[in-house]
Amino acid sequence: MTWFYAFDLFGVAVFAITGALMAGRKSMDLFGVMVIAIITALGGGTLRDAILDNHPVSWIRNDLYILVAVLAAIGTVVWVRFTRPIHETGLLVADAFGLAVFTVIGTQVALQHDVPISAAVIMGVMTGVAGGVMRDIICNEIPLIFHKEIYATACIAGSLVYIGLYYLGIPENLDITLAILTVLAIRLAAIRWHLGLPRFHLLDRTPPNDDQ
Amino acid sequence: MTWFYAFDLFGVAVFAITGALMAGRKSMDLFGVMVIAIITALGGGTLRDAILDNHPVSWIRNDLYILVAVLAAIGTVVWVRFTRPIHETGLLVADAFGLAVFTVIGTQVALQHDVPISAAVIMGVMTGVAGGVMRDIICNEIPLIFHKEIYATACIAGSLVYIGLYYLGIPENLDITLAILTVLAIRLAAIRWHLGLPRFHLLDRTPPNDDQ
Amino acid sequence: MTWFYAFDLFGVAVFAITGALMAGRKSMDLFGVMVIAIITALGGGTLRDAILDNHPVSWIRNDLYILVAVLAAIGTVVWVRFTRPIHETGLLVADAFGLAVFTVIGTQVALQHDVPISAAVIMGVMTGVAGGVMRDIICNEIPLIFHKEIYATACIAGSLVYIGLYYLGIPENLDITLAILTVLAIRLAAIRWHLGLPRFHLLDRTPPNDDQ
Repeated sequence: MTWFYAFDLFGVAVFAITGALMAGRKSMDLFGVMVIAIITALGGGTLRDAILDNHPVSWIRNDLYILVAVLAAIGTVVWVRFTRPIHETGLLVADAFGLAVFTVIGTQVALQHDVPISAAVIMGVMTGVAGGVMRDIICNEIPLIFHKEIYATACIAGSLVYIGLYYLGIPENLDITLAILTVLAIRLAAIRWHLGLPRFHLLDRTPPNDDQ
Repeated sequence: MTWFYAFDLFGVAVFAITGALMAGRKSMDLFGVMVIAIITALGGGTLRDAILDNHPVSWIRNDLYILVAVLAAIGTVVWVRFTRPIHETGLLVADAFGLAVFTVIGTQVALQHDVPISAAVIMGVMTGVAGGVMRDIICNEIPLIFHKEIYATACIAGSLVYIGLYYLGIPENLDITLAILTVLAIRLAAIRWHLGLPRFHLLDRTPPNDDQ
Repeated sequence: MTWFYAFDLFGVAVFAITGALMAGRKSMDLFGVMVIAIITALGGGTLRDAILDNHPVSWIRNDLYILVAVLAAIGTVVWVRFTRPIHETGLLVADAFGLAVFTVIGTQVALQHDVPISAAVIMGVMTGVAGGVMRDIICNEIPLIFHKEIYATACIAGSLVYIGLYYLGIPENLDITLAILTVLAIRLAAIRWHLGLPRFHLLDRTPPNDDQ
């Protein structure tokens, strides 16, 4: 499916840009920028494939993925250096779109491996968010995903929509489109109205000499 | 073996609870709580299976693992919110028991793959502790395991006991039981009397402009 | 190839020493020292093998790797405790040599799996640097590699030299030697003259209530 493949590469580029921007906030060198961009863009899918035993992974099968991630990273550095600042809202919308595409791809791949529904949803979410989690861990931050507006919840919803339509036998282009729109709608609404899940606050009442 | 399978699920629930509590200390949202719970409970076994090429991993083969982890996470949030505080000592003992079960399972799986003894011990320890290490890394803390009372050392001992009895041809239920008791005895003694391994203190005498 | 295998074990020992020293700076206990040493020495190759589906991984196939890493860790603790301080320059040179060997091994393994050139380079760099990145993440530091003198760039150059000579049909000992010398020359020059790649500084102008 050509248009879906184009969406996939678009998602790789967008995620690579968010990785490059985070690397820039940490004043990394140019190599660091490229590595963080590649990990952000391709880490989620690689983790999914290693756990599913789905080999070869995307960027080994097809070197266009690495090329797109590297070009997006270089483009980000050049853009920030010589041009206007990043358009934050545009980036958020693009990121939501990449998230939607990655979630659907992850769920698809998992269903092709005949996994239970719970595992298919986890694979969808993992494909969407694990690259960003790796980016944040390497940059020594608590992953944003656990703190910000409904992000992975949008992935769960989109993944469930895709699974439901898949088992109903809906034509493939339609189920992909509806699942992507589900993720996009939830994520954009969360951004627009600052929606979030309730937090679980637990005071650390543990005395300093405690065993745990 | 039904009773050992029940022990396994019990370990999953206990580890999920420790993950949910850590997520609460970091004020994560409900999705973050569930993710950290799942990673803490199932991350060690998943890492072991990816390295051993032992597919499909447990929670893909059987969706009860995810269900137990999610229910334990939700139960923790509800419990902390509406009921009494966590019984710290009870949790420590339950955690030691889960650690013992996971260590034995990891060693068993490794032996079934005909690995050297050193790798079987590492797989046992990895199954027992890697989930907690992932939890601590994502929550941006130096993993507790490297700082606290004899924890992984108990896993090493239990793993070696299991390997020894396995090669001696002891009946399976007996070797499992003795290995679990070994881990439990060492870990509970360490908790009770605050035992720890010697530390390796190295002052950082490196000048700030150093290359390393 | 016996001499190259000896180089490999030498690299394992050197990387284990850097891991043990970092664990000492964090005052870890003896178990933590051994774990960090093993992860630093063998983590890069293990990650590469899991992604390439190259099983069994080195330390499962051959238990000498774990033995060397553990002995190097114990030797480091004993040395620091009872003898003179670490010879920093000697360690840097040894580390550069280990980096060179690991990079060539990673590239070799990838080429045997018929991957695209971009993936072979990534596998070479990953084998050389991922163990150190894991060490730094577990010890809660932003990985040094992204901040210091040309390190991974040396791996990229060595990997490309090896790939070029490999496709030219140069005899194997010669291509390995030239690739190792490439990494060594670049890395030692970077250490000697404090060379570095340009940094990408991005001020964080994001307001605190931002969505991203």
